[in-house]
Amino acid sequence: MTATGLLAAIADVGADRTRGGYSRHGFDRVELELREWFIAEARRRGLDVETDRNGNIWAWWGKPGPDAVITGSHLDSVPGGGAFDGPLGVVSALAAVDVLRAKGFVPRKPLAVVVFVEEEGGRFGVPCLGSRLITGAIDPDRARSLVDPDGISLADAIRAAGADPSTLGPDEEALTRIGCFVELHVEQGRGLTVPVGVASSILAHGRWRFTFTGEGNHAGATLMQDRRDPMVPAASLVLAARKAAVGGARATVGRIMPVPGGTNVIASEVNVWLDARAADDATTKSVVAEIQALARQAAAEEGCGVRVTQESYGDTVVFDEVLRDDLSTVLGGVPALPTGAGHDAGILASRVPTAMLFVRNPTGVSHAPEEYAEPDDCEAGVAALATTLEHLTS
Amino acid sequence: MTATGLLAAIADVGADRTRGGYSRHGFDRVELELREWFIAEARRRGLDVETDRNGNIWAWWGKPGPDAVITGSHLDSVPGGGAFDGPLGVVSALAAVDVLRAKGFVPRKPLAVVVFVEEEGGRFGVPCLGSRLITGAIDPDRARSLVDPDGISLADAIRAAGADPSTLGPDEEALTRIGCFVELHVEQGRGLTVPVGVASSILAHGRWRFTFTGEGNHAGATLMQDRRDPMVPAASLVLAARKAAVGGARATVGRIMPVPGGTNVIASEVNVWLDARAADDATTKSVVAEIQALARQAAAEEGCGVRVTQESYGDTVVFDEVLRDDLSTVLGGVPALPTGAGHDAGILASRVPTAMLFVRNPTGVSHAPEEYAEPDDCEAGVAALATTLEHLTS
Repeated sequence: MTATGLLAAIADVGADRTRGGYSRHGFDRVELELREWFIAEARRRGLDVETDRNGNIWAWWGKPGPDAVITGSHLDSVPGGGAFDGPLGVVSALAAVDVLRAKGFVPRKPLAVVVFVEEEGGRFGVPCLGSRLITGAIDPDRARSLVDPDGISLADAIRAAGADPSTLGPDEEALTRIGCFVELHVEQGRGLTVPVGVASSILAHGRWRFTFTGEGNHAGATLMQDRRDPMVPAASLVLAARKAAVGGARATVGRIMPVPGGTNVIASEVNVWLDARAADDATTKSVVAEIQALARQAAAEEGCGVRVTQESYGDTVVFDEVLRDDLSTVLGGVPALPTGAGHDAGILASRVPTAMLFVRNPTGVSHAPEEYAEPDDCEAGVAALATTLEHLTS
Repeated sequence: MTATGLLAAIADVGADRTRGGYSRHGFDRVELELREWFIAEARRRGLDVETDRNGNIWAWWGKPGPDAVITGSHLDSVPGGGAFDGPLGVVSALAAVDVLRAKGFVPRKPLAVVVFVEEEGGRFGVPCLGSRLITGAIDPDRARSLVDPDGISLADAIRAAGADPSTLGPDEEALTRIGCFVELHVEQGRGLTVPVGVASSILAHGRWRFTFTGEGNHAGATLMQDRRDPMVPAASLVLAARKAAVGGARATVGRIMPVPGGTNVIASEVNVWLDARAADDATTKSVVAEIQALARQAAAEEGCGVRVTQESYGDTVVFDEVLRDDLSTVLGGVPALPTGAGHDAGILASRVPTAMLFVRNPTGVSHAPEEYAEPDDCEAGVAALATTLEHLTS
């Protein structure tokens, strides 16, 4: 089966009629359906499926054990996301297994296809949740108490899915089996001009929630001079983020939620989520510090309060250079490029040798319905991943 | 029954656990429950209940007919609104009927208590929907096609409530019966220092929706210089509104909705609702024109598009001066004061003599859970309304 053929099989699952694209989030009905689909596809290939204590799914070719070569990605999306971010890595892994099987290859090392849970943080706010839990990068108590926009906790969502949230947490057993991890992913900028490349690094990346508090009141009856309107410093934060993101740094506000959110109502509270990234830890923190200072000043000028919560943070990731150069060579000298996007591979990189393959994105658009990769490039990705897996498990 | 006793009877209906306060919107489950409650209260008083072709409820004391004296208000709220805005006028009308009955008064003119539907526009975006429909201030086809945040049209909501949306539209029969309309309402500023006052005027008032369109993309992988992020001009609009609202004008953004609304996603579209009001038509329009110009400029600078839709508009209302002075005198010389808040009375004022009684608001807070009126002031309001109705129907 081709990667695009496998993607076509799930093209109807989780289509978002309001936003366009797909909304597939950790432990929601749609993601559970995709997990069932993946498990069926893995079993059809004779792979042995296990779900770990954090809800990640592993499909094994060969006996699970040390020095295993792991590939895979995630099936969840951002709200209204594209068809490729995540699923391309999963379907390419299945297709690469098909390619290796068809040529009669038998791996000498264990090989597994993994599906990580809630990579985007689209429901519970923390990206790479599954890989963070495995590696201990998030405290399991904190994870269990994360809530989605409807107020449902991760613990409750896991229970509703028929699983047990008490097992969440670091999983040394799973980690010690990993010899290396290779994640294939659609590229998310326009940095790749050939069908396939390898990743060099990921920007440092964090998410911060700013909660501005003021005084809810009537939009018509309240004099301008009597207002403490948290929407005003919230707007200032958006412009401060744009101003502070210089020299390759990125700062984005894509989510803002006024309370109560009525047209004729001065908000009592506005929550704003800031996504900030830069080449290194110091630059990222200084960008955020500048935004925070401007936000605090704007809040003070409006007589509003502001609370800042860091929801997630990860330092710059430099992928294993030996593995990177090895794969680039095996794949015929494909280029290495950095990315601004976060990945489970970036989380695992702190514990195991990790690499990524990127598939060309003709427009560079990602996290949007227009995200795209040409079918030929997708199949080039499958071929590259098959070559990679053959090389690593021989 | 006292006004506060009647309010206590509905204190649990539509409490909003997320936002605080109440969320009661036209034709939703909660508002339908309140309508049933009102009908039962009216019937308990021997009033004859009819629902007009636009979903407004009329409870008649005496045979419906010309020169009737009408009082009442609405039962819906803004999202997360207070307990008094709307319901106080309805329960005070019922309590005033009780007062008149208790003293053996028999009106010489027909008297009715009315409940208007969707006064806040909290669900379908157009305020004073029930009174606008009666007077023809909104086209019934446009009204039927209004949609709520879940994409449900007014027509569908009316059908789901078991009624017929095809009858919406101007209701001359209902209008010709009205001799005058008196709406009692909680004051929404701090303009009233005695328990009860009468209204002199309402600011001109409109709602505009700004739809900024850009390019949805990845918050990490997209270089700052490649972005067309509609959140940036949306934020500029918020600050432009604050800047433009001078000289007694008011401009508010209380509702903003990015699409898709993900933390790690540059929005493809941001909708912002502007509520603007001023003493007269020319000032209101010039304030909005200034905001619109700044918004267009900010959109152009970001490479974004912007569409502006006027969702509602009403010119300044000056209440009938003869009726206003008459009531002020009958009530012992209570003060007359203007308001920045819109009311069904303001819509009806274009067709029939209309007046309003205000009940003191100690903090001036409205459209928020903290909205309040002292029980003694509420009962003073009931007494004033009873006096008014007795005077007008004698």
